[in-house]
Amino acid sequence: MASKLIAIVAGVGPGTGASVARKFAATYPVVLLARKPENYEDLAKEINQKGGRAIGISTDVSDSQSVKNAVEAIKKEFGADVGAAAAVFNASGGFLRKPFLELPEDVFSASLDVSAKGGFNFSQATLPLLLKGVEQKSQHPPSLIFTGATASVKSNALMASFATGKWALRALSQSLAREFGPQGVHVAHAIIDGVIDIPRTREWLKDLGAEAKLSADGIANDYWWLHTQPVTNFTWEIDLRPAIEKW
Amino acid sequence: MASKLIAIVAGVGPGTGASVARKFAATYPVVLLARKPENYEDLAKEINQKGGRAIGISTDVSDSQSVKNAVEAIKKEFGADVGAAAAVFNASGGFLRKPFLELPEDVFSASLDVSAKGGFNFSQATLPLLLKGVEQKSQHPPSLIFTGATASVKSNALMASFATGKWALRALSQSLAREFGPQGVHVAHAIIDGVIDIPRTREWLKDLGAEAKLSADGIANDYWWLHTQPVTNFTWEIDLRPAIEKW
Amino acid sequence: MASKLIAIVAGVGPGTGASVARKFAATYPVVLLARKPENYEDLAKEINQKGGRAIGISTDVSDSQSVKNAVEAIKKEFGADVGAAAAVFNASGGFLRKPFLELPEDVFSASLDVSAKGGFNFSQATLPLLLKGVEQKSQHPPSLIFTGATASVKSNALMASFATGKWALRALSQSLAREFGPQGVHVAHAIIDGVIDIPRTREWLKDLGAEAKLSADGIANDYWWLHTQPVTNFTWEIDLRPAIEKW
Amino acid sequence: MASKLIAIVAGVGPGTGASVARKFAATYPVVLLARKPENYEDLAKEINQKGGRAIGISTDVSDSQSVKNAVEAIKKEFGADVGAAAAVFNASGGFLRKPFLELPEDVFSASLDVSAKGGFNFSQATLPLLLKGVEQKSQHPPSLIFTGATASVKSNALMASFATGKWALRALSQSLAREFGPQGVHVAHAIIDGVIDIPRTREWLKDLGAEAKLSADGIANDYWWLHTQPVTNFTWEIDLRPAIEKW
Repeated sequence: MASKLIAIVAGVGPGTGASVARKFAATYPVVLLARKPENYEDLAKEINQKGGRAIGISTDVSDSQSVKNAVEAIKKEFGADVGAAAAVFNASGGFLRKPFLELPEDVFSASLDVSAKGGFNFSQATLPLLLKGVEQKSQHPPSLIFTGATASVKSNALMASFATGKWALRALSQSLAREFGPQGVHVAHAIIDGVIDIPRTREWLKDLGAEAKLSADGIANDYWWLHTQPVTNFTWEIDLRPAIEKW
Repeated sequence: MASKLIAIVAGVGPGTGASVARKFAATYPVVLLARKPENYEDLAKEINQKGGRAIGISTDVSDSQSVKNAVEAIKKEFGADVGAAAAVFNASGGFLRKPFLELPEDVFSASLDVSAKGGFNFSQATLPLLLKGVEQKSQHPPSLIFTGATASVKSNALMASFATGKWALRALSQSLAREFGPQGVHVAHAIIDGVIDIPRTREWLKDLGAEAKLSADGIANDYWWLHTQPVTNFTWEIDLRPAIEKW
Repeated sequence: MASKLIAIVAGVGPGTGASVARKFAATYPVVLLARKPENYEDLAKEINQKGGRAIGISTDVSDSQSVKNAVEAIKKEFGADVGAAAAVFNASGGFLRKPFLELPEDVFSASLDVSAKGGFNFSQATLPLLLKGVEQKSQHPPSLIFTGATASVKSNALMASFATGKWALRALSQSLAREFGPQGVHVAHAIIDGVIDIPRTREWLKDLGAEAKLSADGIANDYWWLHTQPVTNFTWEIDLRPAIEKW
Repeated sequence: MASKLIAIVAGVGPGTGASVARKFAATYPVVLLARKPENYEDLAKEINQKGGRAIGISTDVSDSQSVKNAVEAIKKEFGADVGAAAAVFNASGGFLRKPFLELPEDVFSASLDVSAKGGFNFSQATLPLLLKGVEQKSQHPPSLIFTGATASVKSNALMASFATGKWALRALSQSLAREFGPQGVHVAHAIIDGVIDIPRTREWLKDLGAEAKLSADGIANDYWWLHTQPVTNFTWEIDLRPAIEKW
């Protein structure tokens, strides 16, 4: 039954994650995953007040047990046979620009832990729900969408930690697209090539004008568009950047 | 004035071109370019009867003079200061699978003439209209969209003629995206990776089921989606394939 | 008989072409192709005086008849059943940095004519000789090597004409590698990413020091290395750049 | 002083690692790293008996302390100011073809631990020695070479664990190439696209003939060639495959 289908967003914060959650909340109950409750509490409240349905679950995507616990909590809330219409992985390991020989091992590991292992944990936890979405004949093909970056396809000097995790996540998404597409799940990867306009970046690139930064709501629209593609026309990868971006 | 903006589709035939034309005709007057009138006549009639506006112009995109003549005809029809909201290049040189040493020179040249020079001629002719669309503050950023193929990114054995033209066209689209994005024109490239479901391919892949082929209307929806992206969130490239496609 | 095998270099000038010709002349008689005799005359003389064997033939690679004439001249010189150990395509259409709407059609066409059609003409003319080299059991697998550039993989703004031809040439080389590798011919493509140190560029990048430019003799060494790879270990593509190059 | 420069090979086994070690041992004292002594003992003996110099050190590249211990052992053996002419990372996490939902977490982690963290640990440990090689004016630019695979650029269905680690390693190599090239260290990445002819694969592809598999000695020759490129002509990436390989 379609009404059982939910959307799950990992990596909810003030930017893309929140915009994606709001967008998908117009159609599905949404589950908000973030390590810290302060990253999802206000958003869940906002969505619930506006007539949607949202719950937040404190989750560390890099910890497989924490992700499994989140799925248990989801089943407790939505029923043991709950299916998912969408799962969006928007988490990201820290971004540290640093000469390689000064890069601490734990920073390098953290990027892999969040981007690569986090992507693995999230995919293993949500794909069974997405496959249930297929069985339950969701209106749109259930979608597993990963947020990438410029560093997913270009590994610049001083960016070894961030890029390594992001390339690994892109590899994961490509393998999953090839395995689960034929099973009816749409796996996609978005290369976000530019600065996203969020509170933290408000002062950045100001001299370039209002259109120098990506809109987080725009990214959410694009994820929704990916979600609504029919099984005959799946996109694995899109790039997204401001018109004025140099690339 | 927005009402003056038109959409131009080159390479109208029974597949993607016609679907794109119908889709954009819901919003803009459309100009249909094809070498042979039989490729656009019925479609133009259909669009006009359904309350849209369409004209067809016999055009050989590989011939710069023919493309210039088409622009003159457009200006005669829509006014000298007509702007364009969208221009879609969907023409394609013939597809001949052949051992390289048996490949006739004229077949190789024809692929380059249509895909590479055709793309050049079409872009030089339509970009001034698209830039007028920017000046005239079109609702969506004026868009120049190119149709690519698997052979745009992979050059297989026996496919030298088709792939060479398609790689050249992709190069053109990337250079134009970088030059004209900052001027407000959205240049995009779509990698169509699979068989499109059109009359000519009706019998192909039948044993794989109804979802083994790309929907031409689905491609048109995706081009429309590209067209509606705001200047803060431009996609240069998407890939499109049936969920069950091996890739 | 191995002594019959020759090397053919198209696009001989003061840079890479001459270095490649000198390098291969240490082992094979070399045929130098260039449009203007002044581009090969001194080099042929130099090679012949040093104990090698070289002939030059005025050839316009963009003209298939001119290339066929060159092959006839080669057969007259070396015998009708001459085989080739190596064929190097080093020709390049002009490089014009220009806003796209100011790019003359003939400049755009010239890049395609030299890089894409020239590559086609040269390959169709030399592959039969390279296949004879396979039959005649050349010491190293007969090699067809194409010179690419940064613009073979990146199509920057204002570079549409050069990049379009170079992407097309790369596509050609990849298709040929897949078709002729199994037949024993080694097809390779080199991405030259940087300025080559030749008389014309002597004053460029001077403040960056002597190592800021690629050595043409170094490129020739790398082409020779590609040539000597055994059939079990073929490389299709290498990139080459100065250590200090930003990329 | 050049005589102090050593070569370090991680991931010594019966295939590429051993061939690379033998090749570099003709010029440099070599350090052989492998987890199990049985993977390097015979080889070290062989090299020492033939007049070269080799030591083996039991090392787990995925464990940063183990790698640091190896460097301490190297300094004890060759002096505290020992420099390196070459460091080759040939270790690889297990290769398990498996439906994603049946892939054990520890298998996925192991691939990242060896390929990504192992690459990190090895690079952080050897780059200071390679930079000393630059200071000590090594004959050839000190080289850090990584062994990749088809799965470094293509992430197939059922291959998520292997590909994820390999993409991460390739990202690491690209970032390091950009950072350390300007400092005189040559960082390269080899995409091994095919089956390597080693004892374990002796029976594979037999019906395709003797040339269906990559030669490990051939790979070693190519690594040596990369090592001898001058600072004006660095290659970051090569692909290597048998001539008859389908790709």
